Amino acid sequence: QELDSTLTNPEKKETFLNHTSKGFILASEDGKYEMQIAARLQLRFAVPDDQDPITFSDFANQDQRIFKINRARLKVGGHAYQPWLKYYFEYELSRSLLLDYRVMIEKWPWLNFKAGQWKVEFTRERFISSGEQQMVDRSLLNRKFTVDRQQGVEVYGNLDGGGIANFNYWAAALTGMGRGATQNDDSKMMYFGRFQWNFLGREVPFSGGDLTISQKPAAIIAIAAISNTSPYTRFSTSGGGNLSGFEGTNDSQYTVNQYQLETAFIYKGFSWASEFHRKNILDNFDEEETLLGGFYITAGYLAHQTLNFWPEPLEIAVRYAEVRPDLSISNNIQRETAIAFNWFFADHKNKLTTELTRFKFQDQELAQDDEIRFRLQLDISF
Amino acid sequence: QELDSTLTNPEKKETFLNHTSKGFILASEDGKYEMQIAARLQLRFAVPDDQDPITFSDFANQDQRIFKINRARLKVGGHAYQPWLKYYFEYELSRSLLLDYRVMIEKWPWLNFKAGQWKVEFTRERFISSGEQQMVDRSLLNRKFTVDRQQGVEVYGNLDGGGIANFNYWAAALTGMGRGATQNDDSKMMYFGRFQWNFLGREVPFSGGDLTISQKPAAIIAIAAISNTSPYTRFSTSGGGNLSGFEGTNDSQYTVNQYQLETAFIYKGFSWASEFHRKNILDNFDEEETLLGGFYITAGYLAHQTLNFWPEPLEIAVRYAEVRPDLSISNNIQRETAIAFNWFFADHKNKLTTELTRFKFQDQELAQDDEIRFRLQLDISF
Amino acid sequence: QELDSTLTNPEKKETFLNHTSKGFILASEDGKYEMQIAARLQLRFAVPDDQDPITFSDFANQDQRIFKINRARLKVGGHAYQPWLKYYFEYELSRSLLLDYRVMIEKWPWLNFKAGQWKVEFTRERFISSGEQQMVDRSLLNRKFTVDRQQGVEVYGNLDGGGIANFNYWAAALTGMGRGATQNDDSKMMYFGRFQWNFLGREVPFSGGDLTISQKPAAIIAIAAISNTSPYTRFSTSGGGNLSGFEGTNDSQYTVNQYQLETAFIYKGFSWASEFHRKNILDNFDEEETLLGGFYITAGYLAHQTLNFWPEPLEIAVRYAEVRPDLSISNNIQRETAIAFNWFFADHKNKLTTELTRFKFQDQELAQDDEIRFRLQLDISF
Repeated sequence: QELDSTLTNPEKKETFLNHTSKGFILASEDGKYEMQIAARLQLRFAVPDDQDPITFSDFANQDQRIFKINRARLKVGGHAYQPWLKYYFEYELSRSLLLDYRVMIEKWPWLNFKAGQWKVEFTRERFISSGEQQMVDRSLLNRKFTVDRQQGVEVYGNLDGGGIANFNYWAAALTGMGRGATQNDDSKMMYFGRFQWNFLGREVPFSGGDLTISQKPAAIIAIAAISNTSPYTRFSTSGGGNLSGFEGTNDSQYTVNQYQLETAFIYKGFSWASEFHRKNILDNFDEEETLLGGFYITAGYLAHQTLNFWPEPLEIAVRYAEVRPDLSISNNIQRETAIAFNWFFADHKNKLTTELTRFKFQDQELAQDDEIRFRLQLDISF
Repeated sequence: QELDSTLTNPEKKETFLNHTSKGFILASEDGKYEMQIAARLQLRFAVPDDQDPITFSDFANQDQRIFKINRARLKVGGHAYQPWLKYYFEYELSRSLLLDYRVMIEKWPWLNFKAGQWKVEFTRERFISSGEQQMVDRSLLNRKFTVDRQQGVEVYGNLDGGGIANFNYWAAALTGMGRGATQNDDSKMMYFGRFQWNFLGREVPFSGGDLTISQKPAAIIAIAAISNTSPYTRFSTSGGGNLSGFEGTNDSQYTVNQYQLETAFIYKGFSWASEFHRKNILDNFDEEETLLGGFYITAGYLAHQTLNFWPEPLEIAVRYAEVRPDLSISNNIQRETAIAFNWFFADHKNKLTTELTRFKFQDQELAQDDEIRFRLQLDISF
Repeated sequence: QELDSTLTNPEKKETFLNHTSKGFILASEDGKYEMQIAARLQLRFAVPDDQDPITFSDFANQDQRIFKINRARLKVGGHAYQPWLKYYFEYELSRSLLLDYRVMIEKWPWLNFKAGQWKVEFTRERFISSGEQQMVDRSLLNRKFTVDRQQGVEVYGNLDGGGIANFNYWAAALTGMGRGATQNDDSKMMYFGRFQWNFLGREVPFSGGDLTISQKPAAIIAIAAISNTSPYTRFSTSGGGNLSGFEGTNDSQYTVNQYQLETAFIYKGFSWASEFHRKNILDNFDEEETLLGGFYITAGYLAHQTLNFWPEPLEIAVRYAEVRPDLSISNNIQRETAIAFNWFFADHKNKLTTELTRFKFQDQELAQDDEIRFRLQLDISF
């Protein structure tokens, strides 16, 4: 009850008010308390459809023209009691979903702790904020391989031995039921680990492109793995769900083991990233096993670094992704090829993206099908 | 991810904190960034029912006494990057709905741009905020004729040629699926236009009453039109829906064309407004056509302007509305007659409204029926 | 519409920014406007289950390990127009529910007014914020006896005649349909009254424990009663619902009359509280009557007050609760015995609680059953 809360801490602290790229910042003079408030809006136009095709029937949908608020975020973060006791929450206003809410103890670079709900650091593509992407949205891989947001506890840090001896690690125990879950189906948790080698001596930030025009190259190689037993075979912002072909909803029905190999590189306005995935789904009830595979490669360039006529705020980016929904059937392949142009009015905080994508699905029993999609997107932070 | 966002814009800006009728205002010293935070609460008591009757069966409902939080709004607006790059969002806390989220480029008075989701400026009654009305809520017309909030893009402005040559215009392309839609049913958009002549040289603000006691009269005549093809025949805060008598839910089922003629006038505490509506619904599946009509007139007066004994914060307001749900059946008429008193503690920001309404419905096949409703409402902004 | 809102109050007020235990505080220099913004996060780990058992079948559930965001609150309060015109709202981010939204006129200590939606002051256990409890959560009694949040109007105050003549009173008329209701089922309201004697001359705050180490003892005896007719036999954060054994959902089906007798005491780090309940449910349709009973006693101690070796931030707390779901069947008894330890990093604003509970249910027709539950909880305010 708020009425009595002043009893325990009646002292008032002098404070400051600032504005940075994190939004407006309220801070107490002693540095112990800070709160950042920011909002982000993503407006999207898509034709003939916004969503990536999932099955062949999605190619036969009638044409649509969609204009929508795709994301409307309220972001509040900061620290309290101590500069190293941090918090962050993010709320999706358009769907009324609590996305992130986490507490972090970040006292030493090499040993940090996190608890709450957040996007697991499994893949670079998913972990990069939707507001800091180079394309309009994530690739065809994301639906099948992301573990999205989970609730749990984590230990992580950066181990810097100087020079090439620079590593990041993450290890987490999570409920494994997805965003917004209030129960676990069984006593089995989700376990996650990621190990990253920053072999040029520093990290590649979790942000699309190389907007700071790095004068020194940065590169990483990472391997990450997840193990989970739950009723789910995929995760999204909506929580746990099933991939097409998996209909079960029983507690403990699916044991999913997956790993991915990741690279990323930035230098003088050029950026590169790739992921290579394997995911094994074991249906504990029907005793069937399915192995999925896929990869993407993506690159971007702020071409005014070499071409004089090229406008400074303009980036060109390309992506190729391939998903095999069942590696035992070699003819089943789903492909995405995309090109995008970004105009950065104020870096990732205010940008316009235009994107053209070609999807091509092939199946051993169906004729090959394809689709061209056009999207235009404004992403702006306040 | 918030962790990396400071990389791109590390500079901090000195800021100011103020309080105005828009709530608390955070602003950077250079004038480029501003954020207003305000909340609004509307508490309502109603007997025997709060909602306007829709069909004859609503007159037979048992008596209720309702006390409720009718609206609980969180409003955040401001500008970013430039003083003319504005944003605004409004969230309904009691129903967890994102109402408005829009970005506006308002650099020149005669040419402005808007994108996002907002209340289409089709009718004065709907566009005026629920917190700036003179009656407890909108008239019987609103359910049948409003197009409510939509997602899309708009161009608008004020053309001032001096004297009576003062005009406002709005033109928008919208998805036409209502608030919160994430898809379009077909490739057809909603188109909206409004043209307004401010023939006394200035606009009548979109706000109920004449609380500023205008010493010069202001008046407008406006005509507005909408065309849309969608599964819906009406729109509300809940999104798209159907009027009673329209049961279809197929994509592209209804083509709706509607227009309205509007007047408004304010002078020395007196206010007047009216709307005259026609709405044509074509069922593309059953090939049936229905024409609806209706109008309202409303007036208010801060009577202390002429009567010495009348308290200064007290306004009296009246309204008469008539709806014909099917113009081909001349006996089907729905009528509303209402009187209200407003006590303005702090203009529209803190006011108490009491209202008495008589509804009278007649139908060629049913006996005429009527109902008296009493409502009391506190509307307060923080 | 925000565009016109500055017309009515263009003046800007100088303001202050502070941080207290209520969070960051924005305030205008003239003292008329103040807004506090705070967030609270509650992370919980529970094994084998988080919820209290409701029926015997809950003891047979398989074991789970649950880690979850149990509460994620956004709290905004303050005053506007006058220092005594207060407001407060609280929103549950993880479930997107508006919990509190109330306006208070607190000009004189002996006569205050409240309108909106809030936790009725019926019982101490429920009224104390979930962030200021001594155990991980409320007792077995809460599900059966709380009336939770309601919408309505209230008058309340403190009558101080000096010395032992110190009393608090509350009287409210409420819709009686629970949190988030927008209708009343009938014309019958819920009526609530509470009378409290602060017989040592001052109130015991609505907050768990005695964290301020009171050097003078404080104690209260209170009696409270509720009467309501509605479709519901219990209330929770989700709104109205039914206790097991009550299946009806008709308007006006249940007339519930209940009362409770409460004590509380604090002195030098020791705290005590108890409630004794009776609740009569009359099914107006089946003409059956059920009488429920129950009580709890709880105590806590900051033992460093007497034991030198005991750490200063550590509190030990115990609770015993007993519920009789039908007093006519003397063998039906549900018992809860719990012990908890709190580590107060920053009073109730940042604390870690560990709790061990034993539930024991007996029924005349079933074998007695019991369960041990362990819970660990971090509650932190920002």
